Amino acid sequence: MTIIVTALEQSPGGVGGALSRDIRVRWALEEVGQPYDLKFVSHSARQEQAYRALQPFGQIPVYTDGDLVLFESGSILLHIAQSYPGLLPADPNGRARAVTWMFAAIGSVEPAILELVTAKFIEGNEPWKEQRLPIIEARIHKRLRELAVRLGDAEWLEGRFSAGDLMMVHVLQRLKPSGMIDHHPGLSAYVGRGEARPAYKRAFSAKL
Amino acid sequence: MTIIVTALEQSPGGVGGALSRDIRVRWALEEVGQPYDLKFVSHSARQEQAYRALQPFGQIPVYTDGDLVLFESGSILLHIAQSYPGLLPADPNGRARAVTWMFAAIGSVEPAILELVTAKFIEGNEPWKEQRLPIIEARIHKRLRELAVRLGDAEWLEGRFSAGDLMMVHVLQRLKPSGMIDHHPGLSAYVGRGEARPAYKRAFSAKL
Repeated sequence: MTIIVTALEQSPGGVGGALSRDIRVRWALEEVGQPYDLKFVSHSARQEQAYRALQPFGQIPVYTDGDLVLFESGSILLHIAQSYPGLLPADPNGRARAVTWMFAAIGSVEPAILELVTAKFIEGNEPWKEQRLPIIEARIHKRLRELAVRLGDAEWLEGRFSAGDLMMVHVLQRLKPSGMIDHHPGLSAYVGRGEARPAYKRAFSAKL
Repeated sequence: MTIIVTALEQSPGGVGGALSRDIRVRWALEEVGQPYDLKFVSHSARQEQAYRALQPFGQIPVYTDGDLVLFESGSILLHIAQSYPGLLPADPNGRARAVTWMFAAIGSVEPAILELVTAKFIEGNEPWKEQRLPIIEARIHKRLRELAVRLGDAEWLEGRFSAGDLMMVHVLQRLKPSGMIDHHPGLSAYVGRGEARPAYKRAFSAKL
C-alpha cells in the first residue's frame, strides 16, 4: 500500500511553496521514514465533486493509505505520529503533552497569523488595510511573547523534538517573510532548528 | 485521582457561558461518565506566573489528572476520547476519521467564526466595522455550505456521534446569537441534535 499525499499544482508562499500545508505531512513522513507519492491537484479539480468527496472544503492535503482517507494536516500529522515511532514520546503523559502543542499551534497561534495573511492579501485593497495591520501584528506579537517565555532556553517545547514542534515550527514559518519572527530571537532560533533537521530539508528540497 | 478542569469566573457568551471552551471538556467528561471538579480562575489569576506555568497563553480550560496537565480544549477532548470509551469508534480508521473532524472544526471552521467575534467586539468601535462584517459573514457562509453538503441527511459526520461532532457542534453554537446558523437548516438541526444529548444538558445545566 502506498501513502499518497495531495499537494497544490501551484503552491502559495514565497519560500518555494514551503508554506503550503502538504509540507507538514511530507516533513512528518520524512521524520518517520515512510515513503509516499505526491498527487498534484489543480485549483479547478479541487472544486469538483470527486475531490470534495475526499475533502469537503476543497483544501490540500488529502492523505490516502489504502482504505483510509484523511484530511486536515493536523489530523494527518497525528495519525502518522501515532502510527510510526519518532514523533511522539513513549510515555502516555508525554504523548498527550506533545499533542497539546499541535493543538496550540493550530488553535492558539495560527489563527492570528492567518488574519494577517487575510488582511494583507484578501483584504489587501480595502481602505482600512493600513490601519488594521498594526492591530493584527500586536495580537501576533503578544502570542509570540507568551510562546517565547514558555520555550525559554529549551531546544524544543517538550523535551525531544515532537509532532508538536513540527506543527509549531511550520506555523511560525509563515511569519518569516514579514520579518515579525525576528523580533523574537528565541523563536527565530527555534524555527531555525526545525529547518535544520535533515527530514525537513528532504521534504523541502523534494518540494523544489 | 480527581480530574480538575479550570473555567472562567465570569464566562463569555450570551447563553449562560455555554460558549466558553471548558464546556467542550465538561460535555466530553459527561459523555464518558467521568466525574470531575471545577476550579474557577479569575482574569487576574490567569495573568500570574503560577497559571502561566500550566497554560502559557493564560486561557482556560486547563485539565489536571494527577501528574498530567493538559491545555487546549482540542487536546483535552482527544485525551478523554482516547482514554475512555464512548467518543470514538472502535476501528482505527474510524477513529482517525472522527479525529479529523475535531481538527476540521478547530482549523477550518472556527477561525472564520472567531474573526467575526473579533470584528464585532474587539474591533467593534473601528470605523471599518460595518463594511467588514459582510465580508467575514460571506466567508463563514461559504464554509457552512461546504459543511452542510458533506453532512447531507446524516445524523452525525461519521456514523455514530463522536468527539468530532462534539467539537463541531460547539464551534457552530457560537453562530446562534447572530442567527447565521439558521440560514443552513441542516446544520441548525445538527447543532440541535448535539444540544439534545443528555450529556450536553448535564454539562450545560451544571454551568448554570
